[in-house]
Amino acid sequence: MVQYKAPVKDIKFLMNDVYNFQKHYQTIPGGDEATEEMVDMILEAAASFSEDVIAPLYQSGDEGCRFENGNVYTPKGFKEAYKQYVEGGWQSMATPVEYGGQGLPISLALAKSEMIGTANWSWGMYPGLSLGAMNTIWMHGTEAQKREYFVPLSDGRWMGTMCLTEPQCGTDLGQVKTKAEPNGDGSYNVTGTKIFISSGDHDLTENIIHIVLARLPGAPEGTRGISLFIVPKFNVNTDGSLGERNPVTCGSIEEKMGIHASSTCVMNFDSAKGYLIGPENKGLMCMFTFMNTARIGTSIQGVASAELSFQGALPYAKDRRSMRALTGKKDPDKVADTLMVHPDVRRMLLTQKAIAEGGRAMVYNAARIADLMNAAHSKGDTELYEKYDDELGFLTPILKAFLTELGYEAANHGVQVYGGHGFIKEWGMEQIVRDAQISKLYEGTTGVQALDLLGRKVLLGKFKSFNTYADKVSAFTKATKRPEMKKFIRTLKRSMIGWKIYNYRIAFKASKNRDMVGSASVDYLMYSGYLCLAYYWAMMAETAYQKIEKGEGDLAFYKAKIQTAEFYFERMLPRAKGHAKMMIKDPKSLMQMKEEDFSFLD
Amino acid sequence: MVQYKAPVKDIKFLMNDVYNFQKHYQTIPGGDEATEEMVDMILEAAASFSEDVIAPLYQSGDEGCRFENGNVYTPKGFKEAYKQYVEGGWQSMATPVEYGGQGLPISLALAKSEMIGTANWSWGMYPGLSLGAMNTIWMHGTEAQKREYFVPLSDGRWMGTMCLTEPQCGTDLGQVKTKAEPNGDGSYNVTGTKIFISSGDHDLTENIIHIVLARLPGAPEGTRGISLFIVPKFNVNTDGSLGERNPVTCGSIEEKMGIHASSTCVMNFDSAKGYLIGPENKGLMCMFTFMNTARIGTSIQGVASAELSFQGALPYAKDRRSMRALTGKKDPDKVADTLMVHPDVRRMLLTQKAIAEGGRAMVYNAARIADLMNAAHSKGDTELYEKYDDELGFLTPILKAFLTELGYEAANHGVQVYGGHGFIKEWGMEQIVRDAQISKLYEGTTGVQALDLLGRKVLLGKFKSFNTYADKVSAFTKATKRPEMKKFIRTLKRSMIGWKIYNYRIAFKASKNRDMVGSASVDYLMYSGYLCLAYYWAMMAETAYQKIEKGEGDLAFYKAKIQTAEFYFERMLPRAKGHAKMMIKDPKSLMQMKEEDFSFLD
Repeated sequence: MVQYKAPVKDIKFLMNDVYNFQKHYQTIPGGDEATEEMVDMILEAAASFSEDVIAPLYQSGDEGCRFENGNVYTPKGFKEAYKQYVEGGWQSMATPVEYGGQGLPISLALAKSEMIGTANWSWGMYPGLSLGAMNTIWMHGTEAQKREYFVPLSDGRWMGTMCLTEPQCGTDLGQVKTKAEPNGDGSYNVTGTKIFISSGDHDLTENIIHIVLARLPGAPEGTRGISLFIVPKFNVNTDGSLGERNPVTCGSIEEKMGIHASSTCVMNFDSAKGYLIGPENKGLMCMFTFMNTARIGTSIQGVASAELSFQGALPYAKDRRSMRALTGKKDPDKVADTLMVHPDVRRMLLTQKAIAEGGRAMVYNAARIADLMNAAHSKGDTELYEKYDDELGFLTPILKAFLTELGYEAANHGVQVYGGHGFIKEWGMEQIVRDAQISKLYEGTTGVQALDLLGRKVLLGKFKSFNTYADKVSAFTKATKRPEMKKFIRTLKRSMIGWKIYNYRIAFKASKNRDMVGSASVDYLMYSGYLCLAYYWAMMAETAYQKIEKGEGDLAFYKAKIQTAEFYFERMLPRAKGHAKMMIKDPKSLMQMKEEDFSFLD
Repeated sequence: MVQYKAPVKDIKFLMNDVYNFQKHYQTIPGGDEATEEMVDMILEAAASFSEDVIAPLYQSGDEGCRFENGNVYTPKGFKEAYKQYVEGGWQSMATPVEYGGQGLPISLALAKSEMIGTANWSWGMYPGLSLGAMNTIWMHGTEAQKREYFVPLSDGRWMGTMCLTEPQCGTDLGQVKTKAEPNGDGSYNVTGTKIFISSGDHDLTENIIHIVLARLPGAPEGTRGISLFIVPKFNVNTDGSLGERNPVTCGSIEEKMGIHASSTCVMNFDSAKGYLIGPENKGLMCMFTFMNTARIGTSIQGVASAELSFQGALPYAKDRRSMRALTGKKDPDKVADTLMVHPDVRRMLLTQKAIAEGGRAMVYNAARIADLMNAAHSKGDTELYEKYDDELGFLTPILKAFLTELGYEAANHGVQVYGGHGFIKEWGMEQIVRDAQISKLYEGTTGVQALDLLGRKVLLGKFKSFNTYADKVSAFTKATKRPEMKKFIRTLKRSMIGWKIYNYRIAFKASKNRDMVGSASVDYLMYSGYLCLAYYWAMMAETAYQKIEKGEGDLAFYKAKIQTAEFYFERMLPRAKGHAKMMIKDPKSLMQMKEEDFSFLD
């Protein structure tokens, strides 16, 4: 049984020591509310809630949701926990005060999401997905729509979903077939089938607000003919009370590899009443406006998988005795030494730790940028908004794909530390692997993220956002003079030069053969991820050295940070070499084989 | 739904074209029976049996075994399939004629095991595990024990198990506590608890013969005090009929991540009657004598996972349409192009293909050596036996750990090709991942195999078996003069030089600090695996060029082999670089962190 403990100390290290969120909060609206005391209080409360209310439902929730007579019932205890969540005001932490929210910074809400998500990813998906619907309405809804839908969503009284995927298409949303026909009264009849709808139905809230991609009559084909609609489960009366049931129903729930406690629904829209949100035929563009922030949410799953699996593996490695240390018996009076004496077990644990803590640093930096974007949006400063959007846009595919790939790896190390016991359900370690698998698939697969990074963000963007990022790294390496940091700075500088050269080499090759982009993409993404993570680890090491120098805080904690950074640079960063060598290869070895020659079975 | 088709063409390519098994069979006892016609007939029959009888039980078997009133019931259809298996004489293919077997080469039986195991790994575990018990009795049993137990096991009338693991120990068998007390009549009372016993109980056969590790009274502590015992489920009367039920019972079956159709039992021995097999206190040594061949069996799971997942992913990639080729529309009249136009999808498919076919080449080469070992044993030529045992001993940890790690990777690619659908049970792709997970854990985890390779086989063995292997590669690179092969040969030569240098560097560092062995081990194993696989791919490419030159056979098939080899050298082999860089690092970054500094949660 994994006993989740929220890593509040590590979160504070990032917020206070590494990123100085207190200073940052003074520059954003609502930030003045987020005093150090308030932040501490919120973090502690979120930690308790995650540890005491949500975490105990993790393994039991693996039994899954029930589907009966068209209704979905969440696992035992989910509803009660959600009631507490709403009462605690957790859903409205970062929503605007004028719509009943608390207006606190997004980054603070994200710390809460990390804790809840690590304690129980499936549980966290219900309120988490609702944020997607809320964001859509906040960014593109009319004032009336905000009052009607956003407020109860923000309260947590209702929940929302995003209905994008259809049986014939997931990534390629241009193929969407769901139709919306105008009723003449401003409403539309929405008809079609959506699949893989997380939280499509459940028993947590009295109403569910679906955001649906559909086509208007005569809309252009492909992505240019898709609009967004609000389709409530229960129609809403003018006084805000629930009206009649809308014909949008759950046809079935999927049997999946993991995240069993999260309902994944087939949703049938059968002339369901809907309302246009945002401009006609601009549905996909509207969705893209907050795709970056939504994807940070998914990247947290990488951190969560690594953190939870590490928390499961470490006590086992300390407790379980097997064989003797290669350097001689460590506990001669015991039947064997613990797993902690074995270098390879330490390698696996440190890999998990480096992913969890390094990934967290990447995510909290992104959250800081999301705060700034949000501030720019509030001020109506489009130029500033786009600047931050670019900055975040470069990082999001890396965060989403690299961190979820590494989170999955970390979850697998957790199983491996347990040996055969890792394969047994009772211990809870294999559940983390099964749950982590989805993170590489939804919100754009690793392959899709990689194309977004290399194709769109780097090459189409003519290296602009890459250069912004590289300048930041360069500023850091220039400013860091401490002799102990040399080992990191030297490697980091060399890596950044290498990265730039590879960019140009790939761009050159891609100009001759477009397949170069797809062929290099995933290796390029992983390469970029390892280099990014090196920067964050170096930053954390520098902060730790500063703290040790000043004699502030828990010195052992800071020393462990430096040691983990050393581990990362020696034992993980070199993986980038292999990716570099592969990404620069000609696409020929991928493209030359004829389709019919992949297999000779018939 | 994955529809398994046995890759008979690929198996014949290895048996006939690459390794010339017909010539090889002339040098081993029983080999003259294995004429080309006979081999063809057997392969075709095994293919039909696997495809038509075993494969259809794969997804349905995922429901798992039932445990009722102390008895285990296998999933629907398993029993009937096993009846056909026994009637077909499949279990006795390679057992000695003097004990009722067919005396065919081990390598041929292994081809059968590959097909059955790929069609349905859990099903194949029942007869597969029985081979372990049979080997033990054949190698260490008395003539009477062979008559009494080996013959019905070989017939398939009974099945056997290996009872090693206990709650407190798996790898570290020196901690075994199960006791065996002499009854004075030559029999022993065996008492203790064994866990993770595959096929510990089931409904496939009337009797089950357990091979049990236990301690005699006054036996030395640790591994030097362990003996082997035969403990039958039903005692056997002198006429071979079943006597009374022995008090060895299944306490429960484990709930696992995968291989649900294989029963994993807690076995309680409560003064169960047992019989010593092999010398007192030499139980572990006896087990080691055939550990290498047993581990080849597990390595097949790596090939099986890759093959089955590839067979599932390829038709989907050909059928599913999403987005357009980067180089322009390929099917302009269709709503989108197929996944096959996307370089990264091809990368995943080719990775699966390179693992499945390359892994198969590694396994069949090992099977060839196992044939020779078996021949040497039959002739009583201990020296020759040990020569082959050394040769195989070097390869087995690589086969077992590298191929299962890569098989797991391949299974994950299969899920990824399906996108979100890969996560849904119905398609069968996620089951392959769940089933593959165990292959990295049982029969010695990857970490344990890596220590065996680097610590025992390479360093303790003073590079002897490594050099034997390196000489073989060197003979191949010298003999291969074909200009088209240069691209492979050059890389292969350079790699082998690098490997030798790394061996010496690691040996030197290990002589200063024993932790170097554990710290380098897993990266060393993966590095070794990639280099080995390169050799097998180069060999296959050379054979393919020969065939094309002679204009023999299916030219497209041979061309695809060469293209897959090119893919491997360009897009997988470079991973070895990263491993090399990491394995050579000082153990410090793994060992310096204090145990209490791994986490600061309390």
